[in-house]
Amino acid sequence: MNGTRRTLIGGAAALAALAPLLALQNVMAQNGGSAPVGSQSAHDAFAGLPNFKMHGDEVVAMLLYPEFTALDLVAPHYFFACMMGAKVHLVAKQKDKPVPSDLGLAIMPTMSIAECPRDVSLIFCPGGTQGTVNAMLDDETVDFVADRGSRAPFITSVCTGSLILGQAGLLKGKRATSHWAARDSLKLFGATPVNERVVTDGRVITGAGVSAGLDFALAVVAKLRGVGYAEALRLQAEYAPQPPVPGGTPETTDPQLAKLMSDMLLPFPGWVAKAAEKKR
Amino acid sequence: MNGTRRTLIGGAAALAALAPLLALQNVMAQNGGSAPVGSQSAHDAFAGLPNFKMHGDEVVAMLLYPEFTALDLVAPHYFFACMMGAKVHLVAKQKDKPVPSDLGLAIMPTMSIAECPRDVSLIFCPGGTQGTVNAMLDDETVDFVADRGSRAPFITSVCTGSLILGQAGLLKGKRATSHWAARDSLKLFGATPVNERVVTDGRVITGAGVSAGLDFALAVVAKLRGVGYAEALRLQAEYAPQPPVPGGTPETTDPQLAKLMSDMLLPFPGWVAKAAEKKR
Repeated sequence: MNGTRRTLIGGAAALAALAPLLALQNVMAQNGGSAPVGSQSAHDAFAGLPNFKMHGDEVVAMLLYPEFTALDLVAPHYFFACMMGAKVHLVAKQKDKPVPSDLGLAIMPTMSIAECPRDVSLIFCPGGTQGTVNAMLDDETVDFVADRGSRAPFITSVCTGSLILGQAGLLKGKRATSHWAARDSLKLFGATPVNERVVTDGRVITGAGVSAGLDFALAVVAKLRGVGYAEALRLQAEYAPQPPVPGGTPETTDPQLAKLMSDMLLPFPGWVAKAAEKKR
Repeated sequence: MNGTRRTLIGGAAALAALAPLLALQNVMAQNGGSAPVGSQSAHDAFAGLPNFKMHGDEVVAMLLYPEFTALDLVAPHYFFACMMGAKVHLVAKQKDKPVPSDLGLAIMPTMSIAECPRDVSLIFCPGGTQGTVNAMLDDETVDFVADRGSRAPFITSVCTGSLILGQAGLLKGKRATSHWAARDSLKLFGATPVNERVVTDGRVITGAGVSAGLDFALAVVAKLRGVGYAEALRLQAEYAPQPPVPGGTPETTDPQLAKLMSDMLLPFPGWVAKAAEKKR
């Protein structure tokens, strides 16, 4: 694999690769690959752009727990892992076995909670349904989020992941968002629910449901590395959305369909309220 | 885990869960859970919607190969796995070890190529960079795609995954798309490159780069289950995109930045052309 990466990066062609070029450099750096990567001139061209901080040393901890929603996490992971020099850890209670998402797709952790650095730049919680409620009831998980979050410059989530932040006591007095069907439950944790795609309140950055992870992550990258870096990654991901069917929010979906979906999800706030009895 | 799902689904509350409700039912069905799920009335309410085919028995085979781009696959997986009754398989050469993506995040296959059903409803290839070129050069991988694709009602890809379809001989005379930096390479395989988000030509459905997987998947769901089903899943995923920075295509990105990104990716078509010497 190192050989492959050297081919990508080391040749005369300099910064040479398709989409995940910045990313591959980043992975290489994480794995102890030696700088400089690519030709100095190509490097300087990017580094000289306005609003573009090419290098950094952020430590990102992304929580995995059983029956999380994989897309909540994988979209932000794409953008975070493309920040050159950043270290992105997938953290689970146990390191050596894959963590099943709510749709069956299982992802390998890269480190255990016990191994996770004490100080991280950013802690991230993905959402889910029953799995998220179970995570809210798991002391080791919530203690981990509360501890790293107590010191982290950024406390973040996508979808119902914000409920775990709330359970960990990190949302008191904060404006925040969640999946549309769970947003009001944020009040249980002393937060003010906000119906926006990405909500920033000091060091707390929360995204709305599932697919909001793309917009959330670009907002985080813009904050950490500049708007130019985020624009580069938006182009790399060819993120020019064109949903082929209407909707996307309860307000823009066919009313009959929106009502059925909303009814279907009605019991969830009850489960959250019960779990919130254990909140920090 | 079965216990959890039964709690979600079996109680008086009927179709009761947050986002992945349809999905959880689906996973349950795949795992041998017995229908009917939820109350009959709630069921009927959905089933009676226009353009909404609640049940199906599609067999979806999603290819995993080393250094694929995880987001290319995980977004479509979300939507495919939420089609009730569909079976979604993650297929790799070896079943028992995680497949590393190009950004380090590793996903567990659910079956080996050898185990994959002979007849599938849909074959899907994710993209990548060097990993995709390596996959194009791997006989077992390309033979698998060519074989299942020869009979599948739908042959699909996101990002540079279309190059694997091309290598397998499945794009001859077809209109198709790919990541913007790789689109022209489709000509090597007898295809006509099209600069659109999702391109459908008969049974071939291809999506543009990385994030196009969301739009691609909704288009596929609309085709398989109706526009109403796709709209329901769009709402479930809260897919109301609001990218917080400009761009997303070479044409809409800051020209200096777009030029640098384009230059960075220039060598890729050369690698593809070399690999295409082995095309079917």
